[in-house]
Formats: sequence, C-alpha cells, structure tokens
Amino acid sequence: MRLLLGSGGFRTDERVALLAAQMRDHFGDVAKILFVPYALADHDGYVQMMTERGLNAGYALDGIHTHADPAAAVERAEALYVGGGNTFRLVDELHRRDLLEPIRARVRAGMPYMGVSAGSNVACPTLKTTNDMPIVMPPSFETLGLVPFHNNPHYFCGTNFVKRDDDLHEHFGETRDDRLREFHEMNDTPVVGLWEGGILRVDAGRIRLIGAPARVFRRGHQPVDIDPPADLSAHLSAAAQGPGNAI
Amino acid sequence: MRLLLGSGGFRTDERVALLAAQMRDHFGDVAKILFVPYALADHDGYVQMMTERGLNAGYALDGIHTHADPAAAVERAEALYVGGGNTFRLVDELHRRDLLEPIRARVRAGMPYMGVSAGSNVACPTLKTTNDMPIVMPPSFETLGLVPFHNNPHYFCGTNFVKRDDDLHEHFGETRDDRLREFHEMNDTPVVGLWEGGILRVDAGRIRLIGAPARVFRRGHQPVDIDPPADLSAHLSAAAQGPGNAI
Repeated sequence: MRLLLGSGGFRTDERVALLAAQMRDHFGDVAKILFVPYALADHDGYVQMMTERGLNAGYALDGIHTHADPAAAVERAEALYVGGGNTFRLVDELHRRDLLEPIRARVRAGMPYMGVSAGSNVACPTLKTTNDMPIVMPPSFETLGLVPFHNNPHYFCGTNFVKRDDDLHEHFGETRDDRLREFHEMNDTPVVGLWEGGILRVDAGRIRLIGAPARVFRRGHQPVDIDPPADLSAHLSAAAQGPGNAI
Repeated sequence: MRLLLGSGGFRTDERVALLAAQMRDHFGDVAKILFVPYALADHDGYVQMMTERGLNAGYALDGIHTHADPAAAVERAEALYVGGGNTFRLVDELHRRDLLEPIRARVRAGMPYMGVSAGSNVACPTLKTTNDMPIVMPPSFETLGLVPFHNNPHYFCGTNFVKRDDDLHEHFGETRDDRLREFHEMNDTPVVGLWEGGILRVDAGRIRLIGAPARVFRRGHQPVDIDPPADLSAHLSAAAQGPGNAI
C-alpha cells in the first residue's frame, strides 16, 4: 500500500512546495486524481480552492461528487485524494455512500492514497483521534483502517493561547496531550501526533516522517518526540500496541 | 427548571470565588450534592480534586459512582452536579446506565442542576458542540435537552497560538467560529459560545450571562457578542432558531 498522509496547516509557500513535491513523487504521472471533498459543505468550491492554492500540485482533480455512482468512480480511479474539513461529516458520507470497502480494496491493490487532516484521519482504524466538532453522528466511528495506527493531525504540544481584548491569554481547555492520554484510557492503538506541515509516507512497510516533528503516543508509555526525516515503523507496528510497563 | 452551566477554565482564585458564590445562591442549603464524575476515568480522584480546589463551594459531594443503583441515587438527590472532562465518555456512561430520563424528570420537577464544561454540554439537546475528542462512540449523541440551545464551553475567538521551539506560532486548524459555522451547516439550534470563567444561570425562563462574555451563533445570522451581565433568553428562544435572512 502507498499512502501520503498530511497533517494540515499547509498555509505557507514552503509547506505548499514540500507537499507538492511529495505529491508528485507519490502520484507520479497519473492523468488525474479522484478528489473526495465530502468533509466540507461546498464541494465545487473545495475543488476550485485546491487548485487556486496550488494544493493540487498541478494534477487535475476530479471531484467524486460530480459522479452519479461514486463507488464506480473509485473503481476506475488512478489515484485518490481525500481532503480535510470536518471528519464527522466526511465519515458520515463515506458510510452512507458505501465507499469504505471500495476504497480499501483499491488502496490495498496498489492505488496511491492521499489524505490531509480529516482525510488522514480516515486512513486510520477509527475517527477517534480527530480534533473536529461532532456536527453529525455517523453510523459508525469506523474508518478505512489502511494503517494500524491513529494520526492526530494539527498536533501541538502544551497549552495554547487565545486573544482576549487584544492580549494573549492561556487557554484552560484540555491540552492535546490530555486528550490523547484520555484516548489511551479507552483504546490501545498507537497515535502519531503530527505537527502542522508534517507528512507521513507509508510505502512497503516503511512509515517515513517528513517536514515536521511528530510525537508518538503509546498506551502505558511516555510519549516519544521524533524529528524528520525518520522511519516511524518501529514505533507504530502491531507489536507496539497495548499496555506497556514504562509508566 | 433551575440550571447553572459553567464554561470551564475556573483556574484563577477570582473565577473560583465567583463560581462558588453562584453555586451557593443556586443550591442554597442542600445538605449534599450528587456529583457525576463519569467524564473522567478516575472517579474517586475527581471527587477529591473538586474539594481540594474549592470547586465544591463547601458542599459535600456524593459521587454517583459509589451508588450500586445510580438511577435511584438521582431519584433521591437534592441537587445534581455533572463535572467536566470528556463529553463522549460522559454521554456514553449516561446512556449505558439509563440515567438521562431520571435526570430529566428530576430537573424538570425542580431539582437544581449544575454542569461545567462537558457537564454543561449534556444539559443541551445533543453533544454536537463539544470540543472534546471522540475517544468512545456513545449509543447516541442525544443528551438531556434541558435547554433549547447548545453551549460551546471554553469558547474563544479567532486563531490560537501554540508553542514550537519556545516561540508562539499561529495554529492553522479550524477556528472555533469555523467549527460552529460548520455545526450550523447541518443543524438549526442556536449556540452560546461561552468564554472561560463564564456562567449561564437558567431560571424561570431567564438565561443570565455572568462572569465572562458570550458569542451567540444562530444559523443564517451574523454572530452577536454579549457582555455580562445580560439576559440571553431573547437570543436563544425557540423563535430564534432556524435559518434567517440576515446573511
């Protein structure tokens, strides 16, 4: 399987250029990429925005929403790109249109997959490490399960700061690490907290970290910070799952 | 019905003092308060922490988890306080223990209710405006529906800033306003974005805002910023629901 998973936050020229270079390496000379815009409400606008911002890396994006039979479009696609937005809305659409199994089958057979932010969450076993607001209840939290770990896109460490009366104030909601610790109170799967601008390339058993650091969370272990470039596969294999005794 | 709904972020002496004063006014001379700690994993530790931090306002907190029959404990309680933590875990427990209907019946009959953060989310019709990570899938997103609006606790406006290499950097994930706009792409219920330290007192048809500002979001309308003290009932009534034509 070949997957390119992006954290999100590709908002600087440098980050967009890195992502585009990775996309060209990942997708090669395909004529067009089937694009899944379901995570946003405005599907046509989403496809247009991707091209305007250079996030298509020069490829023609074929919006899946323009196909009367989206599953058939998946069957015929050379490559697939699932865009970010609201993960719950995306997962709801994938379930209701019965697209999970067709996508799994094609990616397992070698079709290159790309997902950014919510699109990276759905490559994982469930949506349980999304940062998004649950604006709709999908039939299930199950997602594609193409990789044996969870991604937490837009990862950051520590408290965050918000503007109030033009001053920055510490925000007292749970930190991202608090949230992922709570995830591991109820789940075993390892999680990659991927800083904005970061990319995971999954290919031939390797899980390469590119562009930004990551923090790997495993149940029962202290989190581990890793700088790019690195191969995360030893941290994220099935053997890395389950309660440990490090803490 | 009488409800006290807190945003969260009661981490400064001033905020704790305000909350305690509001609690004493709200609960009066009840002997003890039934406390629901299901949003955190460590129930005993949660009750102990509440008292250590002065968040009990001098009241004895009776942990519902110490009762073999939690529904019977609700039936007998003089007052109820639902603590914050992970909203999905809290809602999952409330459904699995069949506690929604007993709590609704008692609060509608006059038992004072208090909820902070996740505990304020569950007073609303659904959990769809929580900020929490979906670490477990509850049987339904339905919550108590004691009020006809949604609360978004720990509200903040604009982008936030995170530390990276000791410098503050803008974070490019969706802003809170982005998330609530997406909520209103799929739902009609008005939402109160309640800044940290803020409190809503619901009593006799009034919805008083205390301690911090709020931003009210209605589908099809521009958000409205409101400073305390204020009565939000005109903004949040059933008549305020549904698409408008202001934008």
